[in-house]
Parts: sequence; C-alpha cells; structure tokens
Amino acid sequence: MTNTQVKLASRPEGLPDDSTWEISQSPIPDLEDGQLLIRTIYVSLDPAMRGWIKDARSYIPPVQIGAVMRAGAIGQVVESKHPGFEKGDYVNGWTGVQSYVVSNGESLYKVQKGLAPMPTYLSTLGMPGFTAYFGLLNVAQPVEGDTVLVSGAAGAVGSVVGQIAKIKGCRVVGIAGGPEKCRYIKEELGFDEAIDYKNEDVKDGIKRTCPKGLNIYFDNVGGEILNAALGRLAMGARIAICGAISQYNSAEVVGPSNYLSLLVNRARMEGFVVLDYTKDYGTAAREMGGWMASGQLKSKEFIVEGIENFPSALHRLFNGDKMGKLVLKIKEEAKVGS
Amino acid sequence: MTNTQVKLASRPEGLPDDSTWEISQSPIPDLEDGQLLIRTIYVSLDPAMRGWIKDARSYIPPVQIGAVMRAGAIGQVVESKHPGFEKGDYVNGWTGVQSYVVSNGESLYKVQKGLAPMPTYLSTLGMPGFTAYFGLLNVAQPVEGDTVLVSGAAGAVGSVVGQIAKIKGCRVVGIAGGPEKCRYIKEELGFDEAIDYKNEDVKDGIKRTCPKGLNIYFDNVGGEILNAALGRLAMGARIAICGAISQYNSAEVVGPSNYLSLLVNRARMEGFVVLDYTKDYGTAAREMGGWMASGQLKSKEFIVEGIENFPSALHRLFNGDKMGKLVLKIKEEAKVGS
Repeated sequence: MTNTQVKLASRPEGLPDDSTWEISQSPIPDLEDGQLLIRTIYVSLDPAMRGWIKDARSYIPPVQIGAVMRAGAIGQVVESKHPGFEKGDYVNGWTGVQSYVVSNGESLYKVQKGLAPMPTYLSTLGMPGFTAYFGLLNVAQPVEGDTVLVSGAAGAVGSVVGQIAKIKGCRVVGIAGGPEKCRYIKEELGFDEAIDYKNEDVKDGIKRTCPKGLNIYFDNVGGEILNAALGRLAMGARIAICGAISQYNSAEVVGPSNYLSLLVNRARMEGFVVLDYTKDYGTAAREMGGWMASGQLKSKEFIVEGIENFPSALHRLFNGDKMGKLVLKIKEEAKVGS
Repeated sequence: MTNTQVKLASRPEGLPDDSTWEISQSPIPDLEDGQLLIRTIYVSLDPAMRGWIKDARSYIPPVQIGAVMRAGAIGQVVESKHPGFEKGDYVNGWTGVQSYVVSNGESLYKVQKGLAPMPTYLSTLGMPGFTAYFGLLNVAQPVEGDTVLVSGAAGAVGSVVGQIAKIKGCRVVGIAGGPEKCRYIKEELGFDEAIDYKNEDVKDGIKRTCPKGLNIYFDNVGGEILNAALGRLAMGARIAICGAISQYNSAEVVGPSNYLSLLVNRARMEGFVVLDYTKDYGTAAREMGGWMASGQLKSKEFIVEGIENFPSALHRLFNGDKMGKLVLKIKEEAKVGS
C-alpha cells in the first residue's frame, strides 16, 4: 500500500502546467498513538489553489515547494489509534492532494453518510457553499427586491449565491460562459436572467438585464466584468469581492478603472475570506441543508476521476470547462472497507 | 453696476484652460418681490469643479455650456425684497462664480459675522470641513489607536481629516507635496508623520510610517497613491473614497490594481458624497466650531483676489500650488455697505 502524492514542484508563471507538479509514491508510515490513517475519496479543486501556490503574503501561507498540495478533501478512516475516530468513519479536512494521509485529527470533522451525496460536502454543504452563504448574507446584505448580479454564476460559489438571493426575494442575474451554462442557471436554478459573456458584451448585457442598476454585485472573476458591474451600480450598492479568477494567472492584475462609481453611488466594495466564519459553518450547513431538502437549493458537482489527472482537471477551473463544483475522485474507492 | 460672470464656454479635455471659460459682463436686473441681490465676496474653489464640467452622469447634473460656473460662495445682501433677508446680511449658498446674483433665497443660509473669519465658512466650517467630518466619522469610522493615512493632507479636506483623527485618538500620517506642506501638517497641525510624495516613493513612505499597516485610508487623490495604500492595509481596514484629484484631468482613470488586498485583509472601500449629510451640517459645524475654539482644530485658507483670476487660480488645485482651502476673493468689497 503506497501513498500517491501531488507535490508542488515549482511556482508557475501564468497557468500551472505539468512542470508545476510532481506526482510521486511514498510508503505509508505505521501509526503512532493519537494518529489515524485516512484514505482520500474526494478532493476539492478550487480557484483559490492558484493563490496558495504564489509566493506572496495572503490570508494563508503559500504552499512550499516540495510540499503536498493543499486541498480540502473527504476520506474514510482506514485505521485509527485516535480516540475520536473509528475505522470506517468519513471525515472532511485539509488533507491535501494525496491518496492517503496520516493525521492527528486536528481540523478534521466527521461527515454523516447518507444525508447528502459525499461530494456535496465539498460543494454546497462545504467551503464553496459557505463562501456563497456568508459572502452574500453577511457582506453584501441583500434586501428583498434588490437586483443581484453574480459572476461565475454556474460555478460552485456563484450558483449558490444566486439561489440564496432568490430565496431572499431578490431579482437575480447571472454571468456565465456559453449557452449551456446560461440555460442551466435560468431553467434549473431559477435565475431571472443570464448574460453569456462568451457571446454578449457584458456591459451591454448588464444594461439589458439590470435597467435599474445593481444593488449587489458578487464578484468571482474580477477584470473587465468587475469594471462593467461598477459602471451600473445603483445608489448604495454593495460589491462583495470573493475572488478574481480572470486575474489569478496574470502577472499584473487589472484594477477597476470605474471604481469612482463607488463615490457617485455611495457604494462599497468589500472583501472577505470564508475562513473567518468557521464558528458559524454549522448554522449555514443546517440552513442550506433545509433549503436543499425543500428543493429550493440545488447542488451540482463535476467529477473527474484519478489523482494523476489533478494537473489537467485544475485547468477546468480557469478555462470554464465544467459546471458546478469541480471535484477529483480518487479511484481506489472499491478497496475501502475491504 | 454690472455683474461679472464666469461661464463655461467649452468642455475641456485635460486641464481646463482659458478657452474653457468666458468672462462677461451683464446688467443686474431689478428685483421682483421675493428676491434679493447679493454681492459675492468669497468664492469656494474645489476639485469637484472639474467633475461638474464633465458631460457625465454623476451625483449632480453637469454645468451646461453657457451657464455661470457652479460654486459655493459667501456674499452680502445689497438689496432685499425677500422677507427672510435684510440688506447687510451675510449669506452662504450655491451662488456661482459671479460678482452679483439675484436669488429667491432658496438654499441660502445666513452666516454670523464675527464668530469666525468669513472664508472659514467655505473651508473648515463649510463643505470641505463637512466632507472631512462625515467621511472620516461616518464612513471610515475611526477607533482609538487606529493608524489613519490621508492624502491631500495639506488641503482643505485632508488637513481637517487628519486633525479630527488626532482628536479621536488615532495615529495620523499625511501625504503631501513638498517639504513646506509636510512641515505644516506635522508642526502646525500635529500629524504624527508626513510623506512628501514629491521627494519620497509613496510605497516606501507608507512602509516607513505605517509599519503595522493602515486601519484607515482617506483618499483624496486616487491613482498610484491609492494603489500604494491598498498594498499596506491592516485587517479590517476601511478606505473612504472622497475624491481622485490625480485622475480628474485624465481621459482614462487608472484603476487600483491592488484592489484584491480588500479580500486578503477583509477590508472595504466606500464612496460618499457630503451632500447626503445636509441635515447634519449644523451638528458638525457646532462640534468643529468647538474644536476650533479650543485650539484643537486649525483652519487655513489660501486666498486669490479678483474674479478675472478664476481660471488661473483653479489650476492651483491640480498643481498643488496652495496650502489649505483655496478661496477666490471678489475685489469690490470696499463698495459694500456704501
């Protein structure tokens, strides 16, 4: 039994490629008291990963060269010398892109099987869902009747933002790439309008769909789309800065030249990091679980199989070739519990 | 008796010049019932004027070609057929860049002579002072011990922001152009530190003076200085966007490429317009008047004489060749009360 690990081999300029990663095998050490061995089943692939491999001051330290790539994941306990975990338990934690991990239990929490499909705990009932929940409700603070625009609207965070905004009585417009994603957010998720940024000028699209301006813009992409949104703010608008996927692979970030619209419209632009809300994840999970049970909130995952496909799967975050939450499934699941 | 008026002749690209303005004479009409005639004494010259002559959607409509240039001013009533005003009263209002004005009294308020020098009512006890007061206290919300950075620190707004921040127990750093202004804000106004942007790299200057980062940045200038400030935010920082004088004469505004620092530092950037606080001007004036009386708040005005010098005086706002609040004095004061 060996551990397949994806390690950071070098810091990329631009898009990560094969030279960014080293995939290697290592033996699994014997457990000491207080440790447990987890077999990874699902690994969360997130745009934030691009930031974590940059050598820059940010909200968490960068992944070091030679270290296993940081990732949230769900796995199953294979062996335990830890009093809090038993063989067979499903656990969620920062266990990284590797097929096995020895843990002391820190920052792990147990996942109940059967309440929702496992990948949902990396998606709507996990980090992306919490990001949408706290970013929308605590930072952007929607009021019934608000016009809410969200970019990356067919993605893990954006799709949840739009659905929660609908639940809160807002008019919701999503920006997504291509007719399939636009159809999905309107017909399956209940967005009021969609802007296909691959086939319509976004500035025109915002004008078309938001004639009274935006009360809220939830930004996952940055760049020209953020700038276009700034150009159509309503009075007192709130912009939640969640991410800037269009800029993550650029050497130089493009600043929003329309930022003085904040002055004209007495508006604010505010950044947030979901990790600050850790103590309230339980509340969010219960409320979102309720919405899922009642059919008001849908979760979609896009699953790629095989740890060796991590480098190519990661590209889907940046080229848009996926819908919903991107999850990497580690193949050896059949062996679990054997 | 004729009225000298400065009218908008054309919309400038870049800095306004002589072709932007037409200075003309016109007769003063006889008063009708309900009207009063005011002789202008002091005209307020403000960076916002550059925005008012742009043909763009903003927080107030643009000045039309051929119209008298909009300005706040203080004058004296020469003749009155209005029940609320008597000959000899001093009044403050949006009476424009002209030596006389016939008014129906709307938006005028009386100024008590003797409490403070007249130009102070266009300065610390007027619009710039209110801008500083509400922008700092209501938008940026200082907490004792905060590090507060302000640009345009020797100007009408910035100098008041810094002094109020000191009164509120903050550590205050000002950015100003040249050693004289830097000496002024430190030695006369009590700022803790000054950064001379003409003689020091601002990024280095902020690092030098704000080793723990900024809790508040009050921005009057935009451009590279805003970007440098964004690069040194402390957690939970607040940026108040008051203006962007470095950008007003540019065809294309430079957006702040460091805006993702808002995300990393859970910070917010918020715009405001002082006109929203009109109903609370009285409260602000009383509190600031008290601070002036106790010597905690100093007001400085830079006075240029002669309405014909309006075009050249306006340049001082953009080239920095003045200290404190820029005021245009209309020469014929000797005739008042004759």
